[in-house]
Amino acid sequence: MPTHRQCANAIRILAIDAIEKAGSGHPGAPLGMADMAEALWRRHFRHNPTNPAWPDRDRFVLSNGHASMLYYALLHLTGYDLPMPEIENFRQWGSKTPGHPEAGITPGVDMTTGPLGQGIASAVGMALAERMLAARFNTPEHKIVDHRTWVFCGDGCLMEGISHEACSLAGVWKLGKLIVLYDSNGISIDGRVDAWYNEDVHARFTAYGWQVVGPVDGHDAASLDAAIAEAKAEPARPSIIICKTHIGFGSPKADSEKCHGSPLGESAARATREVLDWHEPPFMIPDDVYKAWNAAPAGRAAEEKWQASFTAYREAYPVLAAEFNRRMAGDLPANWPALAKQLLNEMQSRTEAAATRMTSKTVLERLVPELPELLGGSADLSGSVGTFTASSLHFDPVSALGNYISYGVREFGMGTIMNGLALHGGFIPYAGTFMAFSDQAKNALRLAALMGLRLVWVFTHDSIGVGEDGPTHQPVEQLAALRATPDLLLWRPCDIIETATAWQYALESRHAPVCLSLSRQNLPFYARDEEQAASIAKGGYILLDCTGEPEIIFIATGSEVSLAVETTRRLETMGYRARVVSMPCAELFDAQDASYRKSVLPDTCRARLAVEAASPDFWWKYVGLDGAVCGMNAFGASAPAARLSEHFGFTVGHLLDMALALLKNQS
Amino acid sequence: MPTHRQCANAIRILAIDAIEKAGSGHPGAPLGMADMAEALWRRHFRHNPTNPAWPDRDRFVLSNGHASMLYYALLHLTGYDLPMPEIENFRQWGSKTPGHPEAGITPGVDMTTGPLGQGIASAVGMALAERMLAARFNTPEHKIVDHRTWVFCGDGCLMEGISHEACSLAGVWKLGKLIVLYDSNGISIDGRVDAWYNEDVHARFTAYGWQVVGPVDGHDAASLDAAIAEAKAEPARPSIIICKTHIGFGSPKADSEKCHGSPLGESAARATREVLDWHEPPFMIPDDVYKAWNAAPAGRAAEEKWQASFTAYREAYPVLAAEFNRRMAGDLPANWPALAKQLLNEMQSRTEAAATRMTSKTVLERLVPELPELLGGSADLSGSVGTFTASSLHFDPVSALGNYISYGVREFGMGTIMNGLALHGGFIPYAGTFMAFSDQAKNALRLAALMGLRLVWVFTHDSIGVGEDGPTHQPVEQLAALRATPDLLLWRPCDIIETATAWQYALESRHAPVCLSLSRQNLPFYARDEEQAASIAKGGYILLDCTGEPEIIFIATGSEVSLAVETTRRLETMGYRARVVSMPCAELFDAQDASYRKSVLPDTCRARLAVEAASPDFWWKYVGLDGAVCGMNAFGASAPAARLSEHFGFTVGHLLDMALALLKNQS
Repeated sequence: MPTHRQCANAIRILAIDAIEKAGSGHPGAPLGMADMAEALWRRHFRHNPTNPAWPDRDRFVLSNGHASMLYYALLHLTGYDLPMPEIENFRQWGSKTPGHPEAGITPGVDMTTGPLGQGIASAVGMALAERMLAARFNTPEHKIVDHRTWVFCGDGCLMEGISHEACSLAGVWKLGKLIVLYDSNGISIDGRVDAWYNEDVHARFTAYGWQVVGPVDGHDAASLDAAIAEAKAEPARPSIIICKTHIGFGSPKADSEKCHGSPLGESAARATREVLDWHEPPFMIPDDVYKAWNAAPAGRAAEEKWQASFTAYREAYPVLAAEFNRRMAGDLPANWPALAKQLLNEMQSRTEAAATRMTSKTVLERLVPELPELLGGSADLSGSVGTFTASSLHFDPVSALGNYISYGVREFGMGTIMNGLALHGGFIPYAGTFMAFSDQAKNALRLAALMGLRLVWVFTHDSIGVGEDGPTHQPVEQLAALRATPDLLLWRPCDIIETATAWQYALESRHAPVCLSLSRQNLPFYARDEEQAASIAKGGYILLDCTGEPEIIFIATGSEVSLAVETTRRLETMGYRARVVSMPCAELFDAQDASYRKSVLPDTCRARLAVEAASPDFWWKYVGLDGAVCGMNAFGASAPAARLSEHFGFTVGHLLDMALALLKNQS
Repeated sequence: MPTHRQCANAIRILAIDAIEKAGSGHPGAPLGMADMAEALWRRHFRHNPTNPAWPDRDRFVLSNGHASMLYYALLHLTGYDLPMPEIENFRQWGSKTPGHPEAGITPGVDMTTGPLGQGIASAVGMALAERMLAARFNTPEHKIVDHRTWVFCGDGCLMEGISHEACSLAGVWKLGKLIVLYDSNGISIDGRVDAWYNEDVHARFTAYGWQVVGPVDGHDAASLDAAIAEAKAEPARPSIIICKTHIGFGSPKADSEKCHGSPLGESAARATREVLDWHEPPFMIPDDVYKAWNAAPAGRAAEEKWQASFTAYREAYPVLAAEFNRRMAGDLPANWPALAKQLLNEMQSRTEAAATRMTSKTVLERLVPELPELLGGSADLSGSVGTFTASSLHFDPVSALGNYISYGVREFGMGTIMNGLALHGGFIPYAGTFMAFSDQAKNALRLAALMGLRLVWVFTHDSIGVGEDGPTHQPVEQLAALRATPDLLLWRPCDIIETATAWQYALESRHAPVCLSLSRQNLPFYARDEEQAASIAKGGYILLDCTGEPEIIFIATGSEVSLAVETTRRLETMGYRARVVSMPCAELFDAQDASYRKSVLPDTCRARLAVEAASPDFWWKYVGLDGAVCGMNAFGASAPAARLSEHFGFTVGHLLDMALALLKNQS
């Protein structure tokens, strides 16, 4: 039977070999954390390598994602579908072993990591999901939700502000089943961290209400086991175990940043093999080591035990069990199509002018009671963003019940926690803040898009319509940034029907996050025929048309649609033929076939005027060199919204001038 | 003589009156913090209302910027050029009293705040600037730099992750003259904060190496004075004074979120006047209160004393004094034009292929020894981003000497601290991280642009050229986001001459931050004639031309310029006339006159192909409906860069196909 150290060395060697072969990678962290990984994954981590989708498996997040080879080695050794050729193909095109871990690519990888700090933060969301599902679905006799969330993180993760936001909340939320193993090696890329990171981590996490265990020797199996046992024994506080380690353990470059981000090199790799007393050829693991690592039999048994207990649960509570399965599968309720249709019909009757942030709330008032998977929230702007409904109940850290989270003033934290909730399954998170503050959460949105997560961001106060709060609160470039982000959809609806359609789309979007861009100010309602209403889902459609071919086409979104409509009516009285295209979701419009797109924007009409109170950059795509964009080329200002609209040219008069100039150029 | 409380009430009443008149605003915080403000501004804050530009004044940052009326009341009462009509015009078009404080608009406002947490973070930069300038310029007999940085912040600021990043560094850096007064009122917009913010702030800041004073009664002048005195007495640790206050003090809505973000309303305003025993009509301050607040005479005397000491210093150390004045004025050294010219000439001779991240380092190697105001740094990627030069010296927290900061893994913190350094004056901060992580710092970049700060961001690894590190490290939408941000310039140079020109532009850009987008991979060098070299500064120019009118125009930046050049050469051999436009800074190109722009991009040539390994959205502006863009419509992947370029179509073959299709369409 191999020793703990020998098992850990298998990780080290695989990391060295894969990184040497790839010619790039990060050996320092896998060498440093191998003993931590051996302790956790061989004696505490509850998982089934033959079914990475087991709902009640422990979750694992490698927050310092550059240590990816540690993760791949673990998955390979414990029996996941990650055979040696994949290890040998580390960082190559089409492999299951990318440079940083990517959920959806590698079996067993629970989250995409790389940007430091976001792993630990999303793990807070996973642990919250577990607690809330346990409170909702477990019964005194049946614990069908009962698993831990484990995190490996490094110094860099704890330097990042996101770790503060999320870990502070984890303390408030009493996430006792969240356990972080902190790889405290005192080295980051610029060298010894003392010169830029010398805080007392023990005191910091105690201040958050965590249990702090250690420091322990991160290379000693017995100490690690004792620390992990202590962490597991704490029911109500999240735990962080401070593991003192040596980066690059065993290599001649140990304890130096030189082993962080590039291969050890042939001679250092050879020397490390000697130190580790490892004499196999590259990519060769002795059978007894494989055997010692193999977690498949125990994993299968663990899941079978859970399946048996779930069967008993289903017999006792068939409705609960079906609901649990539905939610974990991410299926909307069976009555969803009828509900969605009814919702749209109801909204057709609400013809009053309203801010789209409020029409969004109106829609949520109908949806929240029907969809228990909706877990709402806000970064301390619940009233302003309309996310808290009459059916919303604040999460209670004692009972773990509720369907609404006050995240505090933590936009980025909210985003990463939503990612964790969505990754765990069982919830569709939605949450709101001001559009200008999407900046703070941007990289969480990016990771959500990259992972293809189902969640909804409610961004209100989406233009200079904010008014008096001024330029720090008035988005300009944010819409362009979100539209330029792949695999993420931005909706900017103009009235309640478009808002309801956007929500319907968002909830049905299983594999792409959706952002709603909503107004602070009131916007008029538009009556639509059935075909028009159905066309909203195409992302762009003719809202108002002329008889015959249009001489000019307006393209507008959200709060500027009404300006386009009014200007068009003025042009009509002057004898021009004008069309208004409402384009609430440009990404969806672009995905339509060419004939539909040309029917909305015929090639022959080159007098095109896009209107949006945001950076104009995006719109040239539709208006071309012969068109024009009425957008924001500057930051806003503090003043009543109407005054700002006038100053920045969002008036019928200014649009009319622009339109007439375009028409003149064409003739 | 009015009491402390009566003086504080003048702030409260002005806040109430202005907010009532404006019909919007945030009364809760000014009412709650008025006593803190009275203590600090009447007895400790060293400033000269008649000269807000005095270099050695104390700095003040209102981190919870929504309390703007507190700030305006202070400026008005102490004698700044902010007369009562400005107070009455709170939040109106063209006033000096916008909804959130804006540097450059209101005399005496040291920083634009609003997005929570960034004020306290930038104050760390200001205090760092003070310490470093003091170390550089003071002599045993002359302390010409000797002032404090004061911050007011609220619960929200301390929830934000940015407070963690910056305050951790402030502890490491021993910024003893940074003093934060924390308005701990236990209320944020969603209600009582206990449910989302219950951490032990005392323990947290002690963990960072701060002196924590209090909690003290934030409404008691004597307690506040004692606490401030204690903070001032600590030489080496930053101090935070925990001030327990009542939000909305004196109003019927005190201790409730209801007074946070909207006017009290007439009846509550009247009731508050009663409670505060204030019987003047709106916007009327009794003469004795004005007199008690007037800080102009003492401020004038303080500055005169400093001026006298500076005169003595100048006599003793004329060179140092001149250098101090130069740096505080933000003037480049007298030899700058010659130096810049020489630099460009030298770079013309470095004809080898090189990554632009390395050509940037080559440029910095020349600049850093010549420009002591350059304060470099990196978010723990110094080697990769090329910001640390042979003349760089790490900041030493004991001596406060050095010209380089290792910020740790804190992109946002780095950004806000750079903002603070630039706001203080005396430094031109530059710092680097990977372009993908510009996301994390985005709102700091936005504030830098909004404030018109002079600083340089070095964003390297700017495309799928990153290769094996994969999609989390490969920017796609970031270039579009930065270009869409007003008043910020993005340069994406293609070789060393463009890189040197970009650096020259950046250093001369006094009122707009500049971002450099640099490659990880090697790029070829282009020889240019003198006219071409001069045209780089126009942002876009003809790098390679055909004889006669072009049939097709390529527009490219950075790493894709060489692809455009190679494709053009292939087209030439096929008999086509093609032009390559290099557009390293589109914002500057757009600022050229129409005749120049048309000479580069003649209206007659509609076959235009833009190439950039990033989101294509931005480029339609130049290619129009008849052109095409070769860009990234998806996230990248982990593989060697050449394999990615092939997959995503950044090859001569693919560009040739696209070009031929365009040429065919035109004919």
